[in-house]
Amino acid sequence: MADRDLTVQLLLTGNEIMSGDTVDSNSALIARRLGELAIGVYRKVTVGDDVKLLGMELAAMAQDSDLLIINGGLGPTIDDLTAEVLARVTGVGIKEHPQARAHLEDWCSRRRLPLNAANLKQAMLPAGATVIDNPVGSAVGFEMMVGSCRVICTPGVPSELAAMLDGIVADLARRMDRPAQRSILRLQTFGLGESTAQQMISDGIDDWPGEVELGFRAGAPQMEIKLSVDSDAALPARQRCRGQLEQLFGDHIIGEGDSTLAGRVLELLRERGATLTTAESCTGGLIASMLTRIPGSSEAFHAGFVTYANNIKHAVLGVDEQVLASEGAVSEAVVRQMALGAMARSGADYAIAVSGIAGPDGGTQDKPVGTVWLAWGSATALKSCRLRWPVERTLFQTMVAAAGLDMIRRTLLGLDSEPRYFSQRRA
Amino acid sequence: MADRDLTVQLLLTGNEIMSGDTVDSNSALIARRLGELAIGVYRKVTVGDDVKLLGMELAAMAQDSDLLIINGGLGPTIDDLTAEVLARVTGVGIKEHPQARAHLEDWCSRRRLPLNAANLKQAMLPAGATVIDNPVGSAVGFEMMVGSCRVICTPGVPSELAAMLDGIVADLARRMDRPAQRSILRLQTFGLGESTAQQMISDGIDDWPGEVELGFRAGAPQMEIKLSVDSDAALPARQRCRGQLEQLFGDHIIGEGDSTLAGRVLELLRERGATLTTAESCTGGLIASMLTRIPGSSEAFHAGFVTYANNIKHAVLGVDEQVLASEGAVSEAVVRQMALGAMARSGADYAIAVSGIAGPDGGTQDKPVGTVWLAWGSATALKSCRLRWPVERTLFQTMVAAAGLDMIRRTLLGLDSEPRYFSQRRA
Repeated sequence: MADRDLTVQLLLTGNEIMSGDTVDSNSALIARRLGELAIGVYRKVTVGDDVKLLGMELAAMAQDSDLLIINGGLGPTIDDLTAEVLARVTGVGIKEHPQARAHLEDWCSRRRLPLNAANLKQAMLPAGATVIDNPVGSAVGFEMMVGSCRVICTPGVPSELAAMLDGIVADLARRMDRPAQRSILRLQTFGLGESTAQQMISDGIDDWPGEVELGFRAGAPQMEIKLSVDSDAALPARQRCRGQLEQLFGDHIIGEGDSTLAGRVLELLRERGATLTTAESCTGGLIASMLTRIPGSSEAFHAGFVTYANNIKHAVLGVDEQVLASEGAVSEAVVRQMALGAMARSGADYAIAVSGIAGPDGGTQDKPVGTVWLAWGSATALKSCRLRWPVERTLFQTMVAAAGLDMIRRTLLGLDSEPRYFSQRRA
Repeated sequence: MADRDLTVQLLLTGNEIMSGDTVDSNSALIARRLGELAIGVYRKVTVGDDVKLLGMELAAMAQDSDLLIINGGLGPTIDDLTAEVLARVTGVGIKEHPQARAHLEDWCSRRRLPLNAANLKQAMLPAGATVIDNPVGSAVGFEMMVGSCRVICTPGVPSELAAMLDGIVADLARRMDRPAQRSILRLQTFGLGESTAQQMISDGIDDWPGEVELGFRAGAPQMEIKLSVDSDAALPARQRCRGQLEQLFGDHIIGEGDSTLAGRVLELLRERGATLTTAESCTGGLIASMLTRIPGSSEAFHAGFVTYANNIKHAVLGVDEQVLASEGAVSEAVVRQMALGAMARSGADYAIAVSGIAGPDGGTQDKPVGTVWLAWGSATALKSCRLRWPVERTLFQTMVAAAGLDMIRRTLLGLDSEPRYFSQRRA
């Protein structure tokens, strides 16, 4: 599938990566973006911030490659060595690059920061290098030829790399004199594990076409299913595959591309001119935060309540004190009253309420750590369910928050069937 | 600083890593575990599941190393090639290993699975290899010498690798005949950039001792400063460095190790028997979520309010409607009333309130995107400030939430001086 004519290698540098203090996600991002052009990465080497070793690798890799992408080592500190090493390997001097300096001056002045010596180091580039704009951070990228190999130097800060890659990929597509050929369709799902999904596909689809590459990317809380094709001729086959997957997984598919549960819920609310409120105990504001991360969320989300303590559930949401005492905070009666109280106080049309035991302490025999009661819906059609995720605290909070959003998504879509994960998670 | 006598390299294999579908966290785990023995990783190479390339790398790396750890390629499928490649490179045959077969039989029978051909492939190892037990999964690890290099093959499934590393590290420590030596002191800071910190250290400390390795790890919202030494003899020197850093950075240091702003705030509240509430507009529940991610947070955090819409600021927190109309939601008067309202309704001793413009839309000339009003303190000693972070929405939310927590930390510590970032961020 990959372009066999172009040998691409990655060289990563950083003591923090070598020591294991930082997990490198940059090389995966670079590979995925190159994958859009059907360019595969042949080999990847990672070394610490060591001038000699970095120089040796750079020279050796440039000799074997058509394109070498270097990541890291562009920062302001003394262990940021990429420009220096590239200048040495190519035998050119290092000098202040006017475009890089202008970028730094602009970057600092917009942030009202002084342009200090550490920052100015970032304008010192190998002579003859071409600057690549950094729309986010202070360190510009740059590229130059080493023999017949194009070397592109990119920053190690993930958000800066991500922003810079748009331009790099577009430029590569132009130079290769062809549009991006690989077309990737990504479907976002919630409530399916990777191995379950894989098994369901093996069992359910026996004529999967060879030209449609299937991939999975498991995350928490969502899992992505990827359908890649390398030519327009394969698009009808992919369309058939997509139909088959929709049959198999049904309403566990949230949407395409970068769809998220929170984004989908906000979309559905907006279409209906409706609003949602949250009453959170064990998720402690995470559901509200997932919603408000999304631009424009204020249209459908006006109010959220984090009622962590029992007296607050009573004082703020009006949960009956006697019910709290007799049933406990993690109970159907309480979570339903939380939802109703939140709707009454905020005037919202829909609510998600959760109360559970995130752990590591606080579990009992009847209600072990990982138990949660959820309520969701409108004041006149409120549903509730007890589920259990016996996992570590923050993963528990993530999965419970996502399940709450998923149930509102299902409610707004008018879906009555229970999601698959209920059968595994029902406590 | 690491053990110069032992050259260690890592070879990772897997198409899913090369394509970017999987982010490799295994090499970071291996590096961290070796770091406990003061063993540094010199170089890391990653390639796809390709017999020829894998064989070339293995042979070349073994020639340059004392220890080569291979990760991945031990599974049951045809693209799991490690045993085959190692057998080829060493010129020994591949044969069924009785101990590996016994492990597989046991593993399958405990799971009531049939021992199929795919599984049995995992018992085929290079002749003469020593099996390393896998306490979790079906694929055993193994090791053998390639020339004078010890080669250890480990599984790519992270939980299996983690379980196997305990034994591998203990065995290495025994062979090296010494306990772990490297000691790392980590200081967590907020409100300092990496380049600022580096510059302050260069300007302020001119006798930094060579035996204390200085490192930075920039994150959002915190930055970590790392002081590593390789022997007990260097501990006094590190203690002096620490003292100098405390002089330089003062109250921008939050704490040691894994300290977080939210964790530190909860600790300080607990020590004082006090409680905190939150009234969030632009951060939308993120401050509450940062607090409740931490086990035991319920002791000092009972209630949080997400008041995204103006009418909710009035209805839920009692913010004056006329003030909302005349000053706007992003104003000193409103954010102070939000804080007071949240304390009145929750009975909490302290509050953080924030109201700002997270973007990408909603800015005006007077109040551009990135502007935020914060209020913090107690009902009788409430402070407020207008700041500006002109950054992307989720980073804005993260930095504002952290600043709110930092101001409460400073209040609880009785610190009156303004943090450094106020001078840059004051809007």
